[in-house]
Amino acid sequence: MGQTKRVVCLVDDEFEDLELWYPVYRAREEGAEVVYAGPEKGRKHIGKYGVPAVADISYAELDESAFDGLLVPGGWAPDKIRRDVRVQEFVRRMNEAGKPIGQICHAGWVLVSAKILSGRKVTSTPGIRDDMENAGAEWRDEAVVIDGNLISARRPPDLPEYAKAFCDVLYGRL
Amino acid sequence: MGQTKRVVCLVDDEFEDLELWYPVYRAREEGAEVVYAGPEKGRKHIGKYGVPAVADISYAELDESAFDGLLVPGGWAPDKIRRDVRVQEFVRRMNEAGKPIGQICHAGWVLVSAKILSGRKVTSTPGIRDDMENAGAEWRDEAVVIDGNLISARRPPDLPEYAKAFCDVLYGRL
Repeated sequence: MGQTKRVVCLVDDEFEDLELWYPVYRAREEGAEVVYAGPEKGRKHIGKYGVPAVADISYAELDESAFDGLLVPGGWAPDKIRRDVRVQEFVRRMNEAGKPIGQICHAGWVLVSAKILSGRKVTSTPGIRDDMENAGAEWRDEAVVIDGNLISARRPPDLPEYAKAFCDVLYGRL
Repeated sequence: MGQTKRVVCLVDDEFEDLELWYPVYRAREEGAEVVYAGPEKGRKHIGKYGVPAVADISYAELDESAFDGLLVPGGWAPDKIRRDVRVQEFVRRMNEAGKPIGQICHAGWVLVSAKILSGRKVTSTPGIRDDMENAGAEWRDEAVVIDGNLISARRPPDLPEYAKAFCDVLYGRL
């Protein structure tokens, strides 16, 4: 057995409940240690439908050397998450290190603000397709798009394929 | 590739949101076709936290020859689900056929009312341990308990191990 993989999932209010939790549990199935990072350690955030999630660490503790992978949920949370400079820098460093970044639905906004989408193949909710393309991405209407370390999906029904793809990249099976 | 596995998940109001959806998506990752069955086809049910789920079929359409596996969610839904005679008979026939039955948290109540627990090893939320033991089950405080076709777990943090175990039994890997 290799070393335990460490994954961080960004969180803020009004995340899409299943887009947050499904990939987290799926990565835990693989043996990964997954923590939530939010604006403040210990703060409870509530999803669009009402499912809670507590930040295990704060954005101030984000350190790319401590994590093997990153998950960004959809919902309205990305509109808040994208504004934090510490998050932007963390996402940029994770990308420069070639570490797997999973993003679904509206999560793409966070990658737009981290300025890592130029020339990358991605998908997202069609609602932010223009934002993704204006950031330089090549957008595709597919359940899951994998471009190197970037794994993206459109919406909740894509979750089974998306979370498996994220784990496959995380564990070097793809 | 073998024939597509068909799985049915029982649903009613106030299910535990992640206990309902996580195993459903996880089974879909394997290629299974998963449908929700509720009191009435097309009715929308809302989880304890607020996540919705729509019944694809009604309890009247439950037919053990049409399904390879059964999922029962936790939350308060099992208190309602257990009362329907059609459900009780369906669960009993699925069990007699040796087909995989996954149940988590308070889902055990449905198995109590289906009268299939005598001598079986199971777990559940500790809150209904007495009900499970009074129904003749041998209760264990373990994340996941597998006894032949019965796969059980205690609570949401057990979901990664539980859903994998259900899929392993469904696909004959265990």
